[in-house]
Amino acid sequence: MVLTSRGAATRRRIVTGAAALFRERGVAQVSLDDIRAATATSKSQLFHYFPGGRSELLLAVAEHEAEQVLADQQPLLGDLTDWRKWQAWRERIIKIYDEQRAGCPLSALTAHLSQADPAAAQKIVIRMNERWQAHLATGVRALSDSGEIDPATDPDQTAATIMTAIVGGATLLQATDSMTYLELALTQALNSLRR
Amino acid sequence: MVLTSRGAATRRRIVTGAAALFRERGVAQVSLDDIRAATATSKSQLFHYFPGGRSELLLAVAEHEAEQVLADQQPLLGDLTDWRKWQAWRERIIKIYDEQRAGCPLSALTAHLSQADPAAAQKIVIRMNERWQAHLATGVRALSDSGEIDPATDPDQTAATIMTAIVGGATLLQATDSMTYLELALTQALNSLRR
Repeated sequence: MVLTSRGAATRRRIVTGAAALFRERGVAQVSLDDIRAATATSKSQLFHYFPGGRSELLLAVAEHEAEQVLADQQPLLGDLTDWRKWQAWRERIIKIYDEQRAGCPLSALTAHLSQADPAAAQKIVIRMNERWQAHLATGVRALSDSGEIDPATDPDQTAATIMTAIVGGATLLQATDSMTYLELALTQALNSLRR
Repeated sequence: MVLTSRGAATRRRIVTGAAALFRERGVAQVSLDDIRAATATSKSQLFHYFPGGRSELLLAVAEHEAEQVLADQQPLLGDLTDWRKWQAWRERIIKIYDEQRAGCPLSALTAHLSQADPAAAQKIVIRMNERWQAHLATGVRALSDSGEIDPATDPDQTAATIMTAIVGGATLLQATDSMTYLELALTQALNSLRR
């Protein structure tokens, strides 16, 4: 659907309003009527922007939250050009997850979407991972170019390993409410990069 | 509840039968009646062993599946006394997750339990993690004692890092259907152990 700039703004207002409600109350506890009320949207407007109903809106909010995962790490993630910046990005990651604790908004959404539309949920996560990994690989290449790390380091594999440490740490944080796993695994992944 | 050996056998039959049904059809698609039929159990028997009903049975099956996560890695996990055995254990982990793909039975259950009884679900995962981590730490200590790795290596921290690599790899496997993350992260965690 091609939207006018005003249409795009309305759609965005609905998506961010829904995202805020989901974060606040939990996905299962929010109805389309709640979202209409919170975003001052009529039934016909909601249907106009999301003809597929609730599951289409959930997908749009999941895309928005996936963007947010990367945006929360910016501008650090896009500028990992020296070791000091990597350390600052590491601190940012720890802070994000420490504040978020069990409440990862994206995984709450994909858990719901996995039942309705697993392929679409998977696509959103894969696309986000690819972009995340590309940023990290660019950062590894920068360290390699400036001679801060072993030039034989494989940027893509290293990026994938760092991402796996974060995802594992975040999953164990949700399961156990302990930050230890994330902190240890991320430290170890970065230390072994530098060795 | 203290059970006679016959009572314990009946309870076990119900739990393993329910676990098999959950694995086959998905947790949401299995009713208590399905479980009674598959395990040849009467309503009063089921109520006798699980007075708390479905959620109590789900908890018992989650405990069983948590045991299974560790049992699937045995006898290797309990005998990580030299580097060759660590490699064999690594191969076993890769094989388990490659066969399982998106279908992790424990996380399917804890996802359901997180709504009904989050504290109980968390306890099961924490207890399993502790035992898993203890096995790995014992293995790290063995390598350290035999001089195969740097004696300054912290066994508990190393064990936590290896577990985080596996959990991250398994989570990304579920999200993307790619084994790459698990293979890379586990290889990297073990390589850095040996360095």
